[in-house]
Amino acid sequence: MTSKISPPYYAVIFTSVRTDNDQGYDRAAEHMMTLARDQSGYIGFESVSDEGIGISVSYWKDLASIRAWKQAADHITAQKTGQDKWYKSYTTRIAKVEREYSFEK
Amino acid sequence: MTSKISPPYYAVIFTSVRTDNDQGYDRAAEHMMTLARDQSGYIGFESVSDEGIGISVSYWKDLASIRAWKQAADHITAQKTGQDKWYKSYTTRIAKVEREYSFEK
Repeated sequence: MTSKISPPYYAVIFTSVRTDNDQGYDRAAEHMMTLARDQSGYIGFESVSDEGIGISVSYWKDLASIRAWKQAADHITAQKTGQDKWYKSYTTRIAKVEREYSFEK
Repeated sequence: MTSKISPPYYAVIFTSVRTDNDQGYDRAAEHMMTLARDQSGYIGFESVSDEGIGISVSYWKDLASIRAWKQAADHITAQKTGQDKWYKSYTTRIAKVEREYSFEK
């Protein structure tokens, strides 16, 4: 994804190790994405996973947008559900993107 | 990866789309990793790729460490080589991690 806006903006870096249990996961993940897209301040989303290891990065205009997304998301995918069922471990990082440079063929 | 140090610290978020040409790629990628680990200020590295789409995040104590890594890396894996051969597109983002929270089973 190439951003449409210039730094500074924010990134939520979510790295995770999944369990074998994916019951309800796809639906919840899709819902999280929809909630993100509906949020003002949402810029974009990138996600890759392979063999249970995942890195997802969502991009946001400011911290207020991230907070609003988190609040909306907490109501649906209760954080606890994910912890118990889907993840062995995860880390969420909130980071301010200060610079970016892109290459495209 | 759970960080051993607390925010603030820095993340380099590298997202890429690869070509079919992987000639010399593995060796260069490994070399980049070794250079990172040897750098003072290096905290850690996470990378996932699937079907040519990759997200790699390296973590650093400060911007000076990132600059030193970039300079060391530029000598070996000339940026141009990667652009021409290995990547259709990529974006590098330098971001300051302001908060993090982790879950582990």
